[in-house]
Amino acid sequence: MAQPEQSWTLGQLAEWLNAELTGDAELRIARPVPADSNDPQGIAFAESEAFLQKGLESQVGALIISRTMPAVTQKPTLRVDSPRMAFAWLLHKVRRPLAIEPGVHPLAVIHPEAEIDETASVGPFAVVERGAALGPQTRVHAHAYIGENCVLGEKTEIYPHAVLVQDVTIGARCTVFSGAVLGSDGFGFVWNGSHRVKIPQVGRVVLEDDVEIGAGTCVDRATSGETRIRQGTKIDNMVQVGHNVTIGAHGVVAAHVAFAGSVTIGDRITIAGQTAIKDGVTVCDDVILGGRTGVMADIDVPGDYLGMPAVRLREELRQLAALQRLPDLLKRVKQLETELEKLKSS
Amino acid sequence: MAQPEQSWTLGQLAEWLNAELTGDAELRIARPVPADSNDPQGIAFAESEAFLQKGLESQVGALIISRTMPAVTQKPTLRVDSPRMAFAWLLHKVRRPLAIEPGVHPLAVIHPEAEIDETASVGPFAVVERGAALGPQTRVHAHAYIGENCVLGEKTEIYPHAVLVQDVTIGARCTVFSGAVLGSDGFGFVWNGSHRVKIPQVGRVVLEDDVEIGAGTCVDRATSGETRIRQGTKIDNMVQVGHNVTIGAHGVVAAHVAFAGSVTIGDRITIAGQTAIKDGVTVCDDVILGGRTGVMADIDVPGDYLGMPAVRLREELRQLAALQRLPDLLKRVKQLETELEKLKSS
Amino acid sequence: MAQPEQSWTLGQLAEWLNAELTGDAELRIARPVPADSNDPQGIAFAESEAFLQKGLESQVGALIISRTMPAVTQKPTLRVDSPRMAFAWLLHKVRRPLAIEPGVHPLAVIHPEAEIDETASVGPFAVVERGAALGPQTRVHAHAYIGENCVLGEKTEIYPHAVLVQDVTIGARCTVFSGAVLGSDGFGFVWNGSHRVKIPQVGRVVLEDDVEIGAGTCVDRATSGETRIRQGTKIDNMVQVGHNVTIGAHGVVAAHVAFAGSVTIGDRITIAGQTAIKDGVTVCDDVILGGRTGVMADIDVPGDYLGMPAVRLREELRQLAALQRLPDLLKRVKQLETELEKLKSS
Repeated sequence: MAQPEQSWTLGQLAEWLNAELTGDAELRIARPVPADSNDPQGIAFAESEAFLQKGLESQVGALIISRTMPAVTQKPTLRVDSPRMAFAWLLHKVRRPLAIEPGVHPLAVIHPEAEIDETASVGPFAVVERGAALGPQTRVHAHAYIGENCVLGEKTEIYPHAVLVQDVTIGARCTVFSGAVLGSDGFGFVWNGSHRVKIPQVGRVVLEDDVEIGAGTCVDRATSGETRIRQGTKIDNMVQVGHNVTIGAHGVVAAHVAFAGSVTIGDRITIAGQTAIKDGVTVCDDVILGGRTGVMADIDVPGDYLGMPAVRLREELRQLAALQRLPDLLKRVKQLETELEKLKSS
Repeated sequence: MAQPEQSWTLGQLAEWLNAELTGDAELRIARPVPADSNDPQGIAFAESEAFLQKGLESQVGALIISRTMPAVTQKPTLRVDSPRMAFAWLLHKVRRPLAIEPGVHPLAVIHPEAEIDETASVGPFAVVERGAALGPQTRVHAHAYIGENCVLGEKTEIYPHAVLVQDVTIGARCTVFSGAVLGSDGFGFVWNGSHRVKIPQVGRVVLEDDVEIGAGTCVDRATSGETRIRQGTKIDNMVQVGHNVTIGAHGVVAAHVAFAGSVTIGDRITIAGQTAIKDGVTVCDDVILGGRTGVMADIDVPGDYLGMPAVRLREELRQLAALQRLPDLLKRVKQLETELEKLKSS
Repeated sequence: MAQPEQSWTLGQLAEWLNAELTGDAELRIARPVPADSNDPQGIAFAESEAFLQKGLESQVGALIISRTMPAVTQKPTLRVDSPRMAFAWLLHKVRRPLAIEPGVHPLAVIHPEAEIDETASVGPFAVVERGAALGPQTRVHAHAYIGENCVLGEKTEIYPHAVLVQDVTIGARCTVFSGAVLGSDGFGFVWNGSHRVKIPQVGRVVLEDDVEIGAGTCVDRATSGETRIRQGTKIDNMVQVGHNVTIGAHGVVAAHVAFAGSVTIGDRITIAGQTAIKDGVTVCDDVILGGRTGVMADIDVPGDYLGMPAVRLREELRQLAALQRLPDLLKRVKQLETELEKLKSS
């Protein structure tokens, strides 16, 4: 294994994390692990009683817990304000960025009219087409395709096998994962009485700063104008973003979600997996859409929604509960009809 | 930006589009844009009152509207028979085909037993395997993989990173977008009491003329025989087409749809997003399946269907409406039971 | 066509398959085909009356049927114990493995610190990064990306354009199809009051022996620890496997299924298309989830489940049947209310 072996003492970690240490300060910790790991050199975090229990029952070396939790004596612990944030800090510490050599790999194909910042890295078999521009410290990995007039802002990273077809503008510090396709044609055809006539798709895709695009996700270019994902929004794997969609800032969108054409989404949205939003629909800021929601009409009020068609979460749960009682209800109505008949004929 | 800057006067456009011009014939128009664009050099189209309003309120330079709409004085307009078709013509005019050099790129790998038409183009890092044949004016872009015995008809275009695994036959004027995989194995296994035994998949994939395959879409090869998509059908992104499926001519299929194995679909179908069709099911011509429909049994009558299991649209809407009244219905039945009890005991 | 033309006499096939032959032993058979094929050199199998009928009505050359079926005189037949298994044997016989030259292609890029077994094959434009290890008889096809510290067991095959991002360990005899992405980041962010803070993802992906991963499927690396797919499990196309998921042995998972983070699945599971499983949920061994099931809570009892939320299949079918009667039920309750009112006032 090529990665450098590293480890720290629990005492070092306590100092770095400003934690209250219980147990052996000399215990060597090599890596962050889940609470149910049996790695004696691992350290896990527990924010709930359930995870604490898992951690105590496993062979994990040490635990990061909250200062608000009672002291633990069975196992070394670090008590901190936010165990999750402390754990994330450790994850950062052991994270290895994806390998890439500095500069342009001799087996990359760069168009003479592309602009590559001298601090950019381009991996083997990457292609950068005419008019493309790679900003400072951008990382374009092996097999990536950076099409005509595509622009990458500072520190943006394009993973192996991601494709930017044409006219895609990406801000700073974005990540596009493997297999993602940005700038493919929007899906637009007109029926002329005998066959489907293609509406050419000539618009752009714009990702603002700090956007993350998951593996296999497709963001279609606009018919004209632009498809835009605003600052800080994170999109999971295999999500479909149709032509002329706008997704607001600081949202999260889980896997297999689909935005049909010309959908407009507000800021700070949370969308769970397999949800779909009908073409042309607008959803306001601060909306949470539960798993597999089907949004068929505009949503103007922040809050939780679920179901197809989407309704307020509470209403959907009421409907689902009622639905489970439906077979029984059928029997009760039958019973009522019988009894009423008896009453009438008596 | 490497693309040539172009523009036309509104008068020129009026002449080309056979339009009735209102306003300044010398106004310079550089590009088609959406109606809510604020681009003073842009021209948008409006077929409805709502889009006309957007266009009048925005800073867009000019509007294409219908001859049947009342004249507009606030902004230059072109009045035509079909604003949508006029706009599509403009989109065609500004569309830039994906960049590719003529001929075979020196960094492509072509098997000596592959046939490449002298008018075909093959991009860098493309691979063309033994027995493959690229017809006249085909365009195989960077990183595409054209597997053994794959055949491309005249003017067919394979986008960067599309994969034709083996035995895929494609007609004329087709487009296969990035990340699509044609000819991957169908999903067939037999449980032998202890593990899953693979059924080898040896059939073909056939796309007839004028088919479009979206980004990330997978069309599995047949177990034996063929998986076929007929003439003129357009498939959106991340659609699953199982082994031995047949999809008829001139259909449209939206993103995330799934056809299980051996499904047969008629001509001129419209299938909205996330719909799924059970293995072995047959759907007749001229069927419209609404979003997220689940087709569990054959459909023999043209028309609109929705729901899971799929029923006629009207019926599904009736059920959905009834469902919303269900919690209230539970209360009403409870009330009936109470009152009936009272009546009986009185 | 480069593939060698082959054919056998029906008599030869009868001998190899230990079959009872009816008809001309000298009939030449060139390939296995579906029962409705009109290929006179084709042989199909029929296990049901319906498929037998198709085979008799088509021009297919011969049929493989069960010894338990009555003799057929209209067409040459082979009668065997398991027609399906006999057909699978024939499919194996005509299957052509995906083309690859032995050894490492001169246009592959191999890191000097990668270990490539001398019997491994690596195709053109493949990339193998530092610390990666390719076992005996592994086949890494064109454009595949084998990231840092990725390990491939004996006879494992990576199709063109599959991506192993980093720290992916694959056992023996696995297949990873085109467009699959293993080891992409899990989807983990924390809201800090103004934006989403990324939780670094540093864990591994482990595929045990004999696993198959479909085209375009994404298996995310664990946050810490591992995402694991156990021995013999087969995953179809475009499936989402989130971080820290465990899928048990010998399961099958159809297209477009999604496993959210930290899901645990037992052995011998069957999951139909578009099903989704909520994060953190555990599903026991021997469970069958019908199409588009939504599993929101642990399942502890083997059996068939359907619906969202998932319930026992029988219960869901009862609910669906009741739902179809709901519009009628509304009318009946209205009727009851009217009659009761009449009774009360009489």
